[in-house]
Amino acid sequence: MASEGGEKPEVFGVERVAVTTRSYDWIIPTLRLLAFFATLAAALVMALNKQKKTFVVATIGTTPIQVTLTAKFRHTPAFVFFVIVNGIASLHNLLMLIVNLVGRKFDYKGLRPLVIAALDMMNVALVSGGVNAAAFMGQLGRDGNSHARWNKICDKFESYCDRGSGAMLASFIGLGLMIIVNIISIVKLRNHKLVNSSIVP
Amino acid sequence: MASEGGEKPEVFGVERVAVTTRSYDWIIPTLRLLAFFATLAAALVMALNKQKKTFVVATIGTTPIQVTLTAKFRHTPAFVFFVIVNGIASLHNLLMLIVNLVGRKFDYKGLRPLVIAALDMMNVALVSGGVNAAAFMGQLGRDGNSHARWNKICDKFESYCDRGSGAMLASFIGLGLMIIVNIISIVKLRNHKLVNSSIVP
Repeated sequence: MASEGGEKPEVFGVERVAVTTRSYDWIIPTLRLLAFFATLAAALVMALNKQKKTFVVATIGTTPIQVTLTAKFRHTPAFVFFVIVNGIASLHNLLMLIVNLVGRKFDYKGLRPLVIAALDMMNVALVSGGVNAAAFMGQLGRDGNSHARWNKICDKFESYCDRGSGAMLASFIGLGLMIIVNIISIVKLRNHKLVNSSIVP
Repeated sequence: MASEGGEKPEVFGVERVAVTTRSYDWIIPTLRLLAFFATLAAALVMALNKQKKTFVVATIGTTPIQVTLTAKFRHTPAFVFFVIVNGIASLHNLLMLIVNLVGRKFDYKGLRPLVIAALDMMNVALVSGGVNAAAFMGQLGRDGNSHARWNKICDKFESYCDRGSGAMLASFIGLGLMIIVNIISIVKLRNHKLVNSSIVP
């Protein structure tokens, strides 16, 4: 099919269908571009998230003894994982955009849509894992857990927690966009099948 | 196609292909059954996970003052989410097995494989989110986090942590199986397309 590359365009009655498919061809790249920006923003905001705070822990005479603590994403494994998976997802979406622009001729045995759909699905799984792990860790930071005697820390590091929440929101938006891309890809594979079987005599 | 229901079987040369496809029809149900058992086991083990432990906190005269603490999955939001998503995934896999057995005739406009693939993908995202959130929370329980002053608790609740880890392992196995099912489903959609386009004159 003309809009996909790997098919034979000489079949009677296919031209009209190909044009119809092509008119919706901007949807997936647009969603991918948005997902790319969302996951990139999530990775960057979380990776650059840092807050220094100085506490007075004691007073000797009139001299206050101060301790400066720094909250960094690197201190929490879930946040490190979050940055890694959002970085992978934004790279993946960028690569798929480039493949979409220039890679139509490099379609070995029509395997490209299949490989893209499988990679998309694995990226959805990765981002979902990363953002959920970070979200539950963030919830622990905000509320603490009295049963485990883990105190909340967001009352001390407010802007750190707010920026972290922003990164998670961006990542959740990226995840939603990637799920929509995935569903549209599956629908497209399915529609090609219906189109091809309908032109069988 | 005979093996899928929604196609026209009268096309020349399709019978052989349909038989070939049918001979691999046991793979997805088998993987689904295994994924069902894995996610069900994960949900049950985590939901029933509970450990009581008695600590001596003080001694008045010769009478020790004891405190009994109970570790339950319900105290950690990530573990509650873990039980919910593994429950949903096992229900989904069971339902898909039933649809596979009895639902071939209820295929409205050939939408069934599409809906199944989309639901499969969303379940992969859910389980991945649940198991990763639980795993990072479990890692916190085992190692603690000195930066946030969260102490480890697995040194006091060893068998609770071990059972939780077992549940997570089962869930990761279920997740892997569901990803494989998803990839095979996409390959199947793709192969139908190739088969159908190859029989075009």
